[in-house]
Amino acid sequence: MPDFPLYCGACGGPVETLIPPGDQRPRQVCPACGTIHYHNPKLVVGCLPVWEDRILLCRRAIEPRLGFWTLPAGFMEADESLAQAALRETMEEACARVELQGLHTVVNIPYISQVHVIYRARLLDTGFSPGDESLETQLFSENEIPWEELAFRSITLALRNYFHDRREGTFILREDTLEPAPALPGA
Amino acid sequence: MPDFPLYCGACGGPVETLIPPGDQRPRQVCPACGTIHYHNPKLVVGCLPVWEDRILLCRRAIEPRLGFWTLPAGFMEADESLAQAALRETMEEACARVELQGLHTVVNIPYISQVHVIYRARLLDTGFSPGDESLETQLFSENEIPWEELAFRSITLALRNYFHDRREGTFILREDTLEPAPALPGA
Repeated sequence: MPDFPLYCGACGGPVETLIPPGDQRPRQVCPACGTIHYHNPKLVVGCLPVWEDRILLCRRAIEPRLGFWTLPAGFMEADESLAQAALRETMEEACARVELQGLHTVVNIPYISQVHVIYRARLLDTGFSPGDESLETQLFSENEIPWEELAFRSITLALRNYFHDRREGTFILREDTLEPAPALPGA
Repeated sequence: MPDFPLYCGACGGPVETLIPPGDQRPRQVCPACGTIHYHNPKLVVGCLPVWEDRILLCRRAIEPRLGFWTLPAGFMEADESLAQAALRETMEEACARVELQGLHTVVNIPYISQVHVIYRARLLDTGFSPGDESLETQLFSENEIPWEELAFRSITLALRNYFHDRREGTFILREDTLEPAPALPGA
């Protein structure tokens, strides 16, 4: 699905790009039925599961970033809370049961219209295993984290924030905003 | 626009409701082009602007809840961060300049697929005035807040959290989840 619809979800007619009366921004508007199609940012929600001094990571079995390591996280569904989304994703990707311990990292990624929200969490037992979307699940201590093989920059930030705050002894909510990554030489 | 599209935004054909392979939930799927239309929660972002011991509220000039008081807040745009959305809405609704002071209240409203996010903020000057979507803008001390005339339950929660934390001397992020309001007798 393109970010901006070409056809109206309400009547099926082609949409036009124009600034609706009283608005300041171009929107996708249906000239036939008048429906305005807003483009809203999406929430990606997950958690950082801790067992003693180690963190549970999942190796992705799906694109994007197949084979790279991540925290359990995914798109929030319409009928759930942030906490429910984090618990569901943790169960789906790592078959892991956790107790959430508060919002810890929020990463705005405006260039792809996403907001990533990561909770701190306490792993309730070590009965985790890869879900359908994971190749492996494994506990890593700080000096074992595969920093060069992490799937997403928001995951790197969440892990860095966690280890920083653990050293300080106080966990505080942190917000970051990502700009597009510079192109790699030769890429 | 209905929450669930009847027609495909990519090709204009009618969509069907079915559980895609590998998924667990019914989605709106286009049988002609295969596009899956996910229904994602929307972010509503704003702030609680403080001037000395008073809070800036706006009286709504638009539906829903026309004539009721609210904090400056609105739907986040796709190309901005949470903080940018809060600053923009505060300027649009109250022509007010603020400095954000951290996320303070998060309210999940799963039955309407929304997440409301309210920052604490410091009003930089008293040069505020009603924007196009407001009838009035006014500073209220705690005992002046028009509790019975607030527009939304998330706003009531944000104000209650603020006054509670101000008494305690420590501001902490709070998360709530709202259930549908009980129907009023005779409504």
